[in-house]
Amino acid sequence: MGLDPVYERLPLAVQQQRDGDATSGARARVNAIRCFCSRVLEIVAPHVPCVKLQAACFERYHFLGVEALASLVAEARSLGLITILDAKRGDIGISNEHYAAGCLLDQTFADLGHLPGPDALTVNPYMGIDTIEPFIKAAVADGKGLFALVRTSNPGSDGIQNLELAQGGTVAQTMAGLVQQAGDAQGVVGIGGYSLLGAVVGATKPADAVRLRQLMPRQIFLVPGFGAQGGGADDVRACFNPDGQGAIITASRSILYAYEKTTDVRWERAIEEATMQMKQDIAAVLG
Amino acid sequence: MGLDPVYERLPLAVQQQRDGDATSGARARVNAIRCFCSRVLEIVAPHVPCVKLQAACFERYHFLGVEALASLVAEARSLGLITILDAKRGDIGISNEHYAAGCLLDQTFADLGHLPGPDALTVNPYMGIDTIEPFIKAAVADGKGLFALVRTSNPGSDGIQNLELAQGGTVAQTMAGLVQQAGDAQGVVGIGGYSLLGAVVGATKPADAVRLRQLMPRQIFLVPGFGAQGGGADDVRACFNPDGQGAIITASRSILYAYEKTTDVRWERAIEEATMQMKQDIAAVLG
Repeated sequence: MGLDPVYERLPLAVQQQRDGDATSGARARVNAIRCFCSRVLEIVAPHVPCVKLQAACFERYHFLGVEALASLVAEARSLGLITILDAKRGDIGISNEHYAAGCLLDQTFADLGHLPGPDALTVNPYMGIDTIEPFIKAAVADGKGLFALVRTSNPGSDGIQNLELAQGGTVAQTMAGLVQQAGDAQGVVGIGGYSLLGAVVGATKPADAVRLRQLMPRQIFLVPGFGAQGGGADDVRACFNPDGQGAIITASRSILYAYEKTTDVRWERAIEEATMQMKQDIAAVLG
Repeated sequence: MGLDPVYERLPLAVQQQRDGDATSGARARVNAIRCFCSRVLEIVAPHVPCVKLQAACFERYHFLGVEALASLVAEARSLGLITILDAKRGDIGISNEHYAAGCLLDQTFADLGHLPGPDALTVNPYMGIDTIEPFIKAAVADGKGLFALVRTSNPGSDGIQNLELAQGGTVAQTMAGLVQQAGDAQGVVGIGGYSLLGAVVGATKPADAVRLRQLMPRQIFLVPGFGAQGGGADDVRACFNPDGQGAIITASRSILYAYEKTTDVRWERAIEEATMQMKQDIAAVLG
């Protein structure tokens, strides 16, 4: 389940309840988003293992949003959900050390209280697989996970990721090889046989997914694009290993805003129904 | 001039002055960083046109760091410095709309006060050049600039950016073509002949820079890696157009921590001297 909360799309009831200052107040908007997300987490926690939080939706409200994001990560973890911070960070190594410290690790600063980091973080390896090393080091130390962007679900991703190389294969396939290699290093593969370094593989590229699954047998695939971005259950089959393991399928907007197709007042029920429907769709493919 | 402040490397005098709670307090650390950066901005403002702030160094302190970053951007702008937020954001289009709103645009939320965004933002186009469109749209609307990652200065960047393509050229050169094309769209090129969409081209790849300069004549190059990362003045010559325009050369650690080679007590003077030395080195190349 993906949390990509956008104030303008929240149910009117949530907007009105929290918002005396709708047109100009950041705090009112962040409060509305926080209340909405809290309720969503409670609704989906019994049904899904994992929640992916989109950093951009919070960072647009500056420090207020960043604070709300951290508190929702903590809330989700306390509900037993695995939390993935979808922040797609990527810089040179020394800056990635700082991103790892800020975006992934649990914090023990006395004046921040105990601030539990997310269980996993998405990272962008375009600057080179060497730049991911500080994230891996941090993840190993703190028992966390990573998902490196390999093949994304948006239409324009072909323009780079799908380029054919002189040496054979595509850019995304080369990236997959680099991720597989980095993810196979000592101490990085867990007892379940999966590496803590996973891969983002979009749900809208089923043909590519087959090859990428072969290239990265020990990577957990984080598969966005299910639902609103056009990926269907058939498209995601190739992202799983033959035993039906190894992929996390996420849907965000198609669940969060499911109420838009019903009535506003039933928004909580609409979210729950859309969540269960998605589970059924995926189970049908795997079964 | 690049601001990549790391608490552990601040002059002891700055650490001690601000830090009653050095080992456990985030607030004390952020205060020390803020004071240090404020002073650095005052020192360099008469000498340089532009300051690049590394988001990671601030985000590691969560909302406290994010708040300090915003206030330093405002401070730098009020000193007449052009401000570049080096956050390397990149996601699918709809999330980039949120990043553009949060990382680039001036804010007019009543309860945040007027929060001036930076003049420019670095972005990561690995997910596809289409994903950069929301950034371009925001930049056009608000008179801001962008720098898309094309060729970075770290050693491992070759593993992706320097791959040879079946169609000829490298991944970075294809990215350069996409950036040039997107940057030439209507309303994106300014009266000076440069596009508001620039490119990050590392200072440690002079051979590549020659070709990239040809491919992107209307892109301003943001050239990190001067100094601490090993790029010298000769390496950056190719990043400029023949008239000596079109590139912003940045040095961060070699200036910020110049005092480490002298004595702690002279840290302000060491920063000023390193700044002037860098200007001289670059001017010598161009002259």
